[in-house]
Amino acid sequence: MRKKYVVSVDLGGTNVKFALVKGKKIISRREIPTKAYKTKDALLKGIVGEVREIISALQTYEVCNYKPRRFVKVAGIGIGTPGLVDYKKGVVHHLVNIKGWKDVPVASILRKALGVPVVLDNDVNLMALGELAAGAAKGAKNAVCITMGTGVGGGIIIDGKIYRGSSLSAGEIGHTPVTLKGPKCNCGGWGCLEKYVGNKAIVGRYRGTFLGPRQNHSGATKLRLTPEEISRKARRGDRAAVRTWKETGECLGMALTGVVNLLNPEVIVIGGGVAGAGKFLFGPLRDTVRKRAMDLPARTVKIVRVKLGNDAGLVGAAELVLSGLRIKN
Amino acid sequence: MRKKYVVSVDLGGTNVKFALVKGKKIISRREIPTKAYKTKDALLKGIVGEVREIISALQTYEVCNYKPRRFVKVAGIGIGTPGLVDYKKGVVHHLVNIKGWKDVPVASILRKALGVPVVLDNDVNLMALGELAAGAAKGAKNAVCITMGTGVGGGIIIDGKIYRGSSLSAGEIGHTPVTLKGPKCNCGGWGCLEKYVGNKAIVGRYRGTFLGPRQNHSGATKLRLTPEEISRKARRGDRAAVRTWKETGECLGMALTGVVNLLNPEVIVIGGGVAGAGKFLFGPLRDTVRKRAMDLPARTVKIVRVKLGNDAGLVGAAELVLSGLRIKN
Repeated sequence: MRKKYVVSVDLGGTNVKFALVKGKKIISRREIPTKAYKTKDALLKGIVGEVREIISALQTYEVCNYKPRRFVKVAGIGIGTPGLVDYKKGVVHHLVNIKGWKDVPVASILRKALGVPVVLDNDVNLMALGELAAGAAKGAKNAVCITMGTGVGGGIIIDGKIYRGSSLSAGEIGHTPVTLKGPKCNCGGWGCLEKYVGNKAIVGRYRGTFLGPRQNHSGATKLRLTPEEISRKARRGDRAAVRTWKETGECLGMALTGVVNLLNPEVIVIGGGVAGAGKFLFGPLRDTVRKRAMDLPARTVKIVRVKLGNDAGLVGAAELVLSGLRIKN
Repeated sequence: MRKKYVVSVDLGGTNVKFALVKGKKIISRREIPTKAYKTKDALLKGIVGEVREIISALQTYEVCNYKPRRFVKVAGIGIGTPGLVDYKKGVVHHLVNIKGWKDVPVASILRKALGVPVVLDNDVNLMALGELAAGAAKGAKNAVCITMGTGVGGGIIIDGKIYRGSSLSAGEIGHTPVTLKGPKCNCGGWGCLEKYVGNKAIVGRYRGTFLGPRQNHSGATKLRLTPEEISRKARRGDRAAVRTWKETGECLGMALTGVVNLLNPEVIVIGGGVAGAGKFLFGPLRDTVRKRAMDLPARTVKIVRVKLGNDAGLVGAAELVLSGLRIKN
């Protein structure tokens, strides 16, 4: 059987990424800056235009490779987006940086404009689905995928499928409390994991250790410092950077110990900018889980870096389309 | 269709409880003290004897009620036991207080002696199954059941079935870390929830508040104090007892916030001695989850007391037999 084509869309706050996916492979890519589109309608039109171009380029690709007798269709369009999404209705509730974006039935709008099935889901769920299909969680029955960045998100795989929970909001591992009291979080709670291992916390840990609290307000370094830079510093032997990753790993390891004891997964896949810290993060992280989690589940679980990197969500979006999910709209 | 009979056995460290179950209802009960049997073989013989008596009493019951034409058979025997159990092989790895109890193929031994199918599982899983069938989690798709006592155990229901994890050890909610550092736990880790909301911690909280640290070693009160007694004191208006339950609820609420955000369950069912604290525990517990968990899953979840009480495990054992699980032995 010939593999089907899918157009995957990663609808983020900064960029909208597009990919033509065949099976589990990305054949071509495009990208547009989200912020260049000032309104909801402009952005949706922009997306429709890009998808049309991808589909028309697909004809050329097919003609060159397989000489098809008729117009080649895509099986559908799969969209991933951060935050609160109703995958059953194909509605994106919020989108950062776009004014007037509230409860937009994206799937329905795109289906009408493009005439092909459209499905959508939370980007972390799609990352999990991508890693499950062709990445670090390939073939796993039970897995947890985590993306670390400004926020810390999670996708849970149970019995080889995305586990969504009773009101479709499962997987919010970034909001696991790690202390009885603690700093206020955007989610309304306090002491959440995200406040301890999110990008801001990582940079804060490094600054606190390295420059001391007094110099925290000095401009230049503050502007540029990112977890990626701290990873580079660690590789160059900067002890404060190594220590930053150690503390981050221990704290993330504490939360993952709870997940390992509770869910007994085969594999925990970690993605996002921090995954580049490599052994500096994964060393203390695995160590903490090995020491703190119960013997049997600790021996069972593998804690690994994402394999597909930023492509995991795009491959996952294609998987969602090919899984046969259909949205009634 | 006539409902089938099952003999349920709750094989605990203190007592072995037996019940004849018809459908989801307990018809008769028996009990023997575990410690009266000094060896593994003596205890197993004792169990076989009790089960035989239950089955023969069943004949009398049937004759009186339905006048059956032939010997009435039970559909099987379901056994629940604490600790590490291999439900697939029907093996109980450990049993507290019984010498030489190591990796005993209980299901196989009882099947040979009694000639009926025998299945077994962890007692917390069976409690969850019982509450799902006829108790506080009735009809739930996703639920978490927790038993609180000396230890804190958990059973997870996903998609209406027990979720067991990749090496059959899922559900160990008592070993969720609640602090970065903390007291050493029997599990090998540290800072586990059990150390903060187990019976010992509850009594310790009360003593610390009430008598002050210096008098902690005074004999008489120390010997008798139990969570049940602290509940009675709270109902009588003892402020230290009320405070003990408040602190316990806040700490349990912190761990359950993580579970609610991660698994987005419909219901969390809490059983064990502490459930008798009623509003003194459940008030601060529900309050903490409402405040700390994310809005949507916090609004979704109900946090309730077990409905079947100590019978949940016995009803669950019958459910396991009727589910058609068969052990190859």
